Amino acid sequence: MKISKTTTAKEKPADPAKYPWGSVFSDHMFIIDYKDGQGWHDPRIVPYGPISISPAAKCFHYGQELFEGMKAYNTADGGVAMFRPIENMKRINNSCVRMCMPQINEEEMVSAIAELVRLDKSWIPTATGTSLYIRPFMIATEAAVAAHPSHEYMFIVIMSPVAAYYPNGLAPVRIYVEHKDVRAVRGGTGEAKCGGNYAASMRAQAEAEKKGYAQVLWLDGVEQKYIEEVGAMNVWFVIDGKAITPALNGSILPGITRKSVAQVLKDWNIHVEERKISIEEVAAAYKAGKLQEVFGTGTAAVISPVGELKYDELVMNINDGKIGSISQRLYDEITGIQSGKVADRHGWVYRV
Amino acid sequence: MKISKTTTAKEKPADPAKYPWGSVFSDHMFIIDYKDGQGWHDPRIVPYGPISISPAAKCFHYGQELFEGMKAYNTADGGVAMFRPIENMKRINNSCVRMCMPQINEEEMVSAIAELVRLDKSWIPTATGTSLYIRPFMIATEAAVAAHPSHEYMFIVIMSPVAAYYPNGLAPVRIYVEHKDVRAVRGGTGEAKCGGNYAASMRAQAEAEKKGYAQVLWLDGVEQKYIEEVGAMNVWFVIDGKAITPALNGSILPGITRKSVAQVLKDWNIHVEERKISIEEVAAAYKAGKLQEVFGTGTAAVISPVGELKYDELVMNINDGKIGSISQRLYDEITGIQSGKVADRHGWVYRV
Repeated sequence: MKISKTTTAKEKPADPAKYPWGSVFSDHMFIIDYKDGQGWHDPRIVPYGPISISPAAKCFHYGQELFEGMKAYNTADGGVAMFRPIENMKRINNSCVRMCMPQINEEEMVSAIAELVRLDKSWIPTATGTSLYIRPFMIATEAAVAAHPSHEYMFIVIMSPVAAYYPNGLAPVRIYVEHKDVRAVRGGTGEAKCGGNYAASMRAQAEAEKKGYAQVLWLDGVEQKYIEEVGAMNVWFVIDGKAITPALNGSILPGITRKSVAQVLKDWNIHVEERKISIEEVAAAYKAGKLQEVFGTGTAAVISPVGELKYDELVMNINDGKIGSISQRLYDEITGIQSGKVADRHGWVYRV
Repeated sequence: MKISKTTTAKEKPADPAKYPWGSVFSDHMFIIDYKDGQGWHDPRIVPYGPISISPAAKCFHYGQELFEGMKAYNTADGGVAMFRPIENMKRINNSCVRMCMPQINEEEMVSAIAELVRLDKSWIPTATGTSLYIRPFMIATEAAVAAHPSHEYMFIVIMSPVAAYYPNGLAPVRIYVEHKDVRAVRGGTGEAKCGGNYAASMRAQAEAEKKGYAQVLWLDGVEQKYIEEVGAMNVWFVIDGKAITPALNGSILPGITRKSVAQVLKDWNIHVEERKISIEEVAAAYKAGKLQEVFGTGTAAVISPVGELKYDELVMNINDGKIGSISQRLYDEITGIQSGKVADRHGWVYRV
């Protein structure tokens, strides 16, 4: 791999919380090109900066693009770690199947990202809750305005020092149950981490924010009855001591934090159910006083407690708007494993 | 508007049919920028070429992008025309609503496109069935990896000399009825001309092509029972002398050729029905010998007769695989109006 170091290192933000989330980038980025017949070629680390691309590139027209979200952390012993990075690379390859895009070599790409993180190590912020957010993405670059899979692609990794995803940290958020707009449907692209899913979700998200909600809870596209996910996160419900999350059905993003949380809960002998769960079931549990906690799980926020769930006229006030004990314990456990303060009993930590 | 002319005019292809459709571009392109608070600004025509864009631009990550397809034609009297260009600009603004993108000034953008066409007039090919394909598109350019609507955009127009969309011209195509993958669902982005819809359709399209079919016929996302559209086109069925096309329901693209065809059919006193139509109804009509014609309508192909429709095990052989009389008559009428050979009784032709 060729490495071209920057000659004009940028100033690092003293406090990433003072910038909009994900808007400041480190000094370098990783790029590798793909062409049908030639495969992936020319891996390189170059100074972070604009890319030159044809206005006819298919990613601008036909949404043939996918991405991942990962983080690098400073660990308690002075090292640097990533959390289950191979899982992100596997998910890229799953997204590729749905989007007709070329598979990557998972191990090689983890190594390339580690190389990039090492080079920009000084960009990892140190305050609690902060990290270096890593954004790998793949775009179709063939210059042709015909709606067929591209014959050329770029895979790029950029990095941004970030504070906690929600300005209030672990403070419970208000969530709005959306039943007009639909994010994804079975047979669609819901389980791929592709641009179109996010574009489809922006209108409802923007309207929910105007009403004072942090995120939208999505219902299934067919019956608009079963719970799918929450904005940028998977979602969990603690009902009568059991932790329930929607099963992976093809239209839900298979979250890596979701998977990790399921394992941790099982380690703790908390009963986990991955199954269909309707909003009506949640409402009934609430009315019966059995809805103990609701929380989202995702790379950006790790664990995000839900303090209020608004479903039509019903306002569900969860756990008196306070952080639930399982939510808090999960947050401490996962971030503890990530930062090296809690034993890594499942081999999730990747030392950079 | 600033116009910077190229100093190195490219060689024009003698025969656009010899290049892949939409892969050769004219000498110039139009660009206008948008920023929240500032609005649209700095309209300019510049030499066609790569654009420099941040790798964090939201269009690469969150699919916030939309496009249009239009054509410029040489007319019989030696002039140049576009077909209902204001309708494309209106559709951009409709797409903008769903995608949380900023509205354009419809009249000003038609004028800008006309200016661009005049400048690259020599790029309009002359052979029958050819045209200068015009591709306006809007992309989110704010550099931030957070899934919220962008605060910055570019609207760009590029142009490509093209031959007939299907290599065999008006020859009937084979269509495969897809019932695994889904393109769009009510509440989704189906009626917006956005990247995500096309990305979602690529896998089924690629698989259909492998089996020897030109396009996929999409069923609705909820029941997978009602007909929506055909790949890059709206679709029509002539059953027992009546012309039937799926009603605009939010998940179907509101085609401008579709709308024009509906008007022309009414002019001819052919009964038109815009309504829900199931694939079972089509199959029943076929079995009863009442399915006379099937054709697609769209800017790229104008009218595309369907010779075969494959639905599970049923192979519907339409009109013995020959061009139907209504399909042929519509093709002659619409292309005749476009080229100035047929009277423009509805004011659809825009003189450049």
